[in-house]
Amino acid sequence: MGVEKLLLAHGGGGEETLSLIKDFILKYFTNPILEPLEDAALLTNQISRLAFTIDGFTVKPIFFKGGNIGKLAVTGTVNDLVVMGAKPLYLTVGFIIEEGFKIKDLEKILQSMQEEAIKNEIYIVAGDTKIVPKSEVDGIFITTSGIGEVIYSGISCKNLKPGDVILVSGPIGDHGACILAEREGIKVDIELESDCETLWPVLKPLFESGIEIHAMRDPTRGGLAANLHEWAYSSQVNLVVEEEKIPVRPQVKAFCEALGFEPYHLACEGRVVIALPEKDAEKALEILRSHPSAAEANIIGQVLDHSSSPQVYLKTLYGTHRVLENTSGELFPRIC
Amino acid sequence: MGVEKLLLAHGGGGEETLSLIKDFILKYFTNPILEPLEDAALLTNQISRLAFTIDGFTVKPIFFKGGNIGKLAVTGTVNDLVVMGAKPLYLTVGFIIEEGFKIKDLEKILQSMQEEAIKNEIYIVAGDTKIVPKSEVDGIFITTSGIGEVIYSGISCKNLKPGDVILVSGPIGDHGACILAEREGIKVDIELESDCETLWPVLKPLFESGIEIHAMRDPTRGGLAANLHEWAYSSQVNLVVEEEKIPVRPQVKAFCEALGFEPYHLACEGRVVIALPEKDAEKALEILRSHPSAAEANIIGQVLDHSSSPQVYLKTLYGTHRVLENTSGELFPRIC
Repeated sequence: MGVEKLLLAHGGGGEETLSLIKDFILKYFTNPILEPLEDAALLTNQISRLAFTIDGFTVKPIFFKGGNIGKLAVTGTVNDLVVMGAKPLYLTVGFIIEEGFKIKDLEKILQSMQEEAIKNEIYIVAGDTKIVPKSEVDGIFITTSGIGEVIYSGISCKNLKPGDVILVSGPIGDHGACILAEREGIKVDIELESDCETLWPVLKPLFESGIEIHAMRDPTRGGLAANLHEWAYSSQVNLVVEEEKIPVRPQVKAFCEALGFEPYHLACEGRVVIALPEKDAEKALEILRSHPSAAEANIIGQVLDHSSSPQVYLKTLYGTHRVLENTSGELFPRIC
Repeated sequence: MGVEKLLLAHGGGGEETLSLIKDFILKYFTNPILEPLEDAALLTNQISRLAFTIDGFTVKPIFFKGGNIGKLAVTGTVNDLVVMGAKPLYLTVGFIIEEGFKIKDLEKILQSMQEEAIKNEIYIVAGDTKIVPKSEVDGIFITTSGIGEVIYSGISCKNLKPGDVILVSGPIGDHGACILAEREGIKVDIELESDCETLWPVLKPLFESGIEIHAMRDPTRGGLAANLHEWAYSSQVNLVVEEEKIPVRPQVKAFCEALGFEPYHLACEGRVVIALPEKDAEKALEILRSHPSAAEANIIGQVLDHSSSPQVYLKTLYGTHRVLENTSGELFPRIC
């Protein structure tokens, strides 16, 4: 188009919108379902059990070590499908972008999205782009919605049972620490990097293994603590996790200590927390660890008894038990 | 929650997010699929032909005569499904909201969304809410994604045939004129009102009637002109529409004349443009007009010959033909 920045006209729905779609969007998101550019994508799969989700992404900075808002928008929605036992199939994407946004940056984002789509063997089948005056939006917001086919049924945050074992697939807090450090310009000696990654390759073998899974969640906003509190509340059970067993990278630990908060409240974007019967725990761990992205998977705790005022406990390094507080407050806006 | 305004903490993913969902979102969007609050909604319909779409809404003002951003976000996505021949089934919704947004206003929006959902017999099955600092977003943005079951196949913007007749279901430009007037504070003697409305009740009888439909579109951003240009380009045909036959309300006409532009470029949010074989045109018109929202439906033009440099013509009130320009430029940001 010979322009370097997005104009309000690119969102007008007329000539310029069509060029934006044809010259840039279709250049990256090329697939036979999107290309007809109709008002809705037409799918012909015979799907009997469908999972359907949506997630908005406002992360700032939009480019960060380990990913960018586009990669995050695909992996985030894919992961929400996967942790419900679904094979991701199709995504739709809505962009809200400030006037003057660099087209080169948009292209980097589109390319990342397509790379993730290919990695997950999914198509981005429909989209929408709005351009908003600079004073009314900061950078770019992306909302992705996804559908998938449920291949493993019964996963639910209401499904934790006393005696269940709790696993995590890798070190926690990487994404949250990375974003906070980059946004606030906090200099750390060791580099922090987001764990932003699709969970499909990690979890597919688990779904196919025949082991029993009770609950599964990717601890994004609110981190591990919010994840565990949601489970405790939904299943009306007490939970305990052990500090010593929860994998945290040294640089994340150092970052947290320096800033005076705990990694349990920091977002992950490529980790999964799983609750399953003890009998299947070792096998699950073995399957997880066989994938490079989950090599540090570990059993971190267990489900205690039923309770009408459920609580989450942390067994500290000193062997004492304390309540692990739910994440709260406004420390972490625009983390995802 | 005892608070009147949204806080950054409401988007943090922890305690306050859960209260926002439980105290407000679920109060309006109540249905058995959303209520489990899992990472993705689980659907059990056997759907063989699925339509899937997404749309972002940034309209300003967020409340306007005839609707608000919430009503628009449901009708807009529903209409994108319906014009592809699909019965709408489920919606997901992503909110991006500025810190300090009045909860009373959010409730009005949620209520409108639920009212439209009920009108369309659909469920809002999953959602996401991000709260962003005031300096980084203006008010509220809503992205809705929808799936539907295709009950009439073959509709496509590539499917216009020479000889086809073009119909519109009612007066054009109401939404665009209303939003522009309200936003710019333009005082007009006669009140302008958005046509924001679901097309499902209007079009369902048409799908069931056995008549042949070639193309169908709701002329939102870019208005009738962009709609016709997209069709001409996609089907490689010349089109002609007649000024005298295109319904435009007198107040919209007056508004356009006063501001020096044409109603063909103004968005509609409750109208549909249809191309179908001449043999079915009268029957289609009769079916459309039998619904109160399409009482002013009219045949406005026809498809001429095939062309490799397709054009859209307007037969003026004086009987002359001129080219109807595509919508372009940045006159209309945040119209939807």
